Amino acid sequence: MTATMTIERGYAPAVELRDRVGRTATAMRRKGLDAIIVSTNANLLYVAGTIINGYAYIARDGEVTFFVRRPAPLLIGDVALIRKPEEIPQWLQSHGKPQPSTFGLEYDIESYATVVRLANIFPQSSHVSASDILAAERAVKSRWEIEQLRASAAIQACAYSKIPKLYRPGMTDVELQIEVERELRRAGTIGLFRMRGGQLEMYMGSLLTGDNADEPSAYDFAMGGAGQSAALPVGADGSAIKPGQAVMIDLGGNAGGWMTDMTRTYSVGALPQQAIDAHNLSIEIAHAIARRGHVGAAAAELYDMAIAMVEKAGFAPYFMGHRQQASFVGHGIGLEVNELPVLHHRSKEILQVGNVIAVEPKFVIPGVGAVGIENTYVVTDRGMDNLTVFPEDLIQLD
Amino acid sequence: MTATMTIERGYAPAVELRDRVGRTATAMRRKGLDAIIVSTNANLLYVAGTIINGYAYIARDGEVTFFVRRPAPLLIGDVALIRKPEEIPQWLQSHGKPQPSTFGLEYDIESYATVVRLANIFPQSSHVSASDILAAERAVKSRWEIEQLRASAAIQACAYSKIPKLYRPGMTDVELQIEVERELRRAGTIGLFRMRGGQLEMYMGSLLTGDNADEPSAYDFAMGGAGQSAALPVGADGSAIKPGQAVMIDLGGNAGGWMTDMTRTYSVGALPQQAIDAHNLSIEIAHAIARRGHVGAAAAELYDMAIAMVEKAGFAPYFMGHRQQASFVGHGIGLEVNELPVLHHRSKEILQVGNVIAVEPKFVIPGVGAVGIENTYVVTDRGMDNLTVFPEDLIQLD
Repeated sequence: MTATMTIERGYAPAVELRDRVGRTATAMRRKGLDAIIVSTNANLLYVAGTIINGYAYIARDGEVTFFVRRPAPLLIGDVALIRKPEEIPQWLQSHGKPQPSTFGLEYDIESYATVVRLANIFPQSSHVSASDILAAERAVKSRWEIEQLRASAAIQACAYSKIPKLYRPGMTDVELQIEVERELRRAGTIGLFRMRGGQLEMYMGSLLTGDNADEPSAYDFAMGGAGQSAALPVGADGSAIKPGQAVMIDLGGNAGGWMTDMTRTYSVGALPQQAIDAHNLSIEIAHAIARRGHVGAAAAELYDMAIAMVEKAGFAPYFMGHRQQASFVGHGIGLEVNELPVLHHRSKEILQVGNVIAVEPKFVIPGVGAVGIENTYVVTDRGMDNLTVFPEDLIQLD
Repeated sequence: MTATMTIERGYAPAVELRDRVGRTATAMRRKGLDAIIVSTNANLLYVAGTIINGYAYIARDGEVTFFVRRPAPLLIGDVALIRKPEEIPQWLQSHGKPQPSTFGLEYDIESYATVVRLANIFPQSSHVSASDILAAERAVKSRWEIEQLRASAAIQACAYSKIPKLYRPGMTDVELQIEVERELRRAGTIGLFRMRGGQLEMYMGSLLTGDNADEPSAYDFAMGGAGQSAALPVGADGSAIKPGQAVMIDLGGNAGGWMTDMTRTYSVGALPQQAIDAHNLSIEIAHAIARRGHVGAAAAELYDMAIAMVEKAGFAPYFMGHRQQASFVGHGIGLEVNELPVLHHRSKEILQVGNVIAVEPKFVIPGVGAVGIENTYVVTDRGMDNLTVFPEDLIQLD
C-alpha cells in the first residue's frame, strides 16, 4: 500500500503522527515516565493513524515501536512482529534500547487482566496510569484534526438539511431516525460512535420526541429516553411524532474516526411559547459560551454562567433534563464523544487553543419534549469557532 | 412503569432472571466464591434484564442486590441507591448480610482502575476473576433466550429477502450496505453490535465484494476488508460491485439485545465454477457441523472435521481467508457476538444443550471475493437446529 493510498483512506500524515507521539513523550518526561504501552483502540488510532492488532510502545526519547501480531501499514516508527507482548523486553534489549524503570498503562480503559499482563512483562519496573496523559494530549486538536472535524460537521449539515423531506405524517421517532441514519451514512459517516470506557453505549445517536425526552436513562448522556428496548435504554422508543411536540435530533457525524456533535430541534406544527423561549435561551447560552470560551477561560466558569442565565430566565427545572438532570453543559469530542474538557461546576480545566467542545444547553419541557441546540466549537484566543454551522432556530417538519 | 410495560420493552421475565442469578450462584459456590460484583454492561443486562447505572452484587445464597446511582425498573432482587461503590460494605452490614471473604470481579472486561477500586472496598477479602463464570453461564441459552434469538433471525430474514430489490447496477459495496442496514433497522433491529472486550469494533456488520475480501484486517473477525477508513479497517471499502464478483453480506440482527449472525452470498451475473464449488462446500460443511454438533461433541472435533473436508476438496488455501486466514469456523453468540463456545482446533469445550453457535465456513477466492454461508444454530441432543432459516444457495442480484 503506497503512502498516498493510506493517506486517502483517512490516515493522519506522518508529520501529524510524529507530533502526537512527540508531545506525548514530552508529557511523559514531565511526569517521570520512561515509556507508555498503548493497547486500546482509540489511543492506538491516535498514535498509529490506524487500528493495529498489538501495542504501541512510546519511549521517553519520542521513539515509537509498534509491536503487532499482524503486519500493518504504518507511516512512522519501528514495526516488530510479535506473537505475544511478553516478547517486548527481549526485542528492546536486542535493539539496544533500555528497559523502562517506570512505565505507563491505560488504567482507566484497558481491562484489569490485560494491564496486569502488560505490567508483568517488566517485573523489575513500576507502572503508573497513563490514560490521563493521552487524554490530555488528545484534548488539544491540531489544524489537521480540526479539518477532519469540519468534514464530519459537513456530513451532518448535508444529512440534517434533508430531514424535513424525510418526515412523513404519522411517522414514529424510530422511523424518522432510521431515515436520518441512512442520510448520514450516504453523506459519508462511517457510522461508528466511539466512546471512552465501556459504560456508554449508543447506536448512531439519539432522536427524542414528546415525553420520551423526559424518561430517565441509565447512561450518562446529556439527555435520556427509554430507547427501543431494555437492552439499550436510551433515545427513541417508538413514540409517534405528534403535532405540538418537539423532535430533538442528535445523530453523530464521523469522518474517518473524527466525530462532531450537532443537535437541532424540529417540530410538527408550532410549539407552545414556553418551549420556543427555552429553545431561544439554548441558542443564547451556546452563543454566550462561545464568546466567553476563549483560551484561558475556566471550564467551570462557562458552566456557572449557563446556570446563571437559566436561573435568571426561570428555566432551571427544565435545564439538561427535567425528571433527571445532567450536571454538565458541554464535553470534549474528537476520536471519542466523551473527551476533555468537560464543562461542569467542579471542572478544574482551563481552555486551551485547539480544545474542541460540544456545547449542548438543552431543556426538557413536560408535554412537549426536548428543545435546544448543540454545536461543536474549537477554542481560539478570541473565543470559540463553530464547526457545525447550520440553521439554529426551530425547524418545522411539515 | 408497570411490570407489563417493562416486559414488553424486551425485559427478560423475572423467572428467567432468577434462574440466571441462581445458576451463577451455583457456579460461584463450586469455585469457592462468596460473591460476584458485576459492573459491565452485557453482564448487567444478563442479570438485571436491563442496563443499570451501578453494580449487581450476587451473593453465594443466590440473592442479588442492585447498587444503583439512579432508580432503575428492576424485576428481581433488592435495590439500593448509592452514590459510590464504597457504600456497599456498609449496606451489607446494616442489612445483616455477610462481607465476602472471596469475591469475583470481571478481570477480562472491566478496566484496571475500576477493578482495583472495587477490590479495595473489601480490603480484608481476596478477589478472583469472575468473567469466566459469567461467560460459561451465558453460553447456555434458555428457551426464552432462544425465542429472542429467533426474533433476531426473523429480522435478518426479512431484510435479506429485500436485498435483490435494493441492488442497482453501478452501486458500491458501501451504498448497498447502507440500504441493507436501513432494512434491518426497519425490520426491528436496535442496531447495536455488542462485542466482549474493547478490541473488536464494527458498525452493523460487514459487506465484502471482490478482492476487498482478501484485504487483511487488524480485527479478529472471520473475514477482513479494508473498511471505509483507516479508523475502522474492516469491511466494505467503497469498491464498485462488478459482474462476476461475489458479494458476501454479514449484517447482524439484534432483537432486544439478542443477536444472531447470518451470512449469505450474492453475485452480479454468474460466478466462476471454483467460487460456486467453494460456496457449495461451505453449505456442506455447515450442514455437517450441524449434524455432528450434538450435545457432548467436542468443539475442536467440529473444527477439525471442517478442515478435513476443506483439505479433501483442495480448498485449504482459501478457507477462512486467503492472504490472512482465521483459525476458527464458529463462535458462540447471544448478548455479544463473541461468546463461548468457539469452534477452533485448540478448543477444550464440549457442546451443551442450549449453546448457540454461529457457524461460518467461508472462502476467499482471489479475483472473485468471499463466498459461503453463516447460520446461527442452537445445540440439541440430536444435533444443531438452525435459527437463521433462509435460502443458502448463491443469490443473483440482477
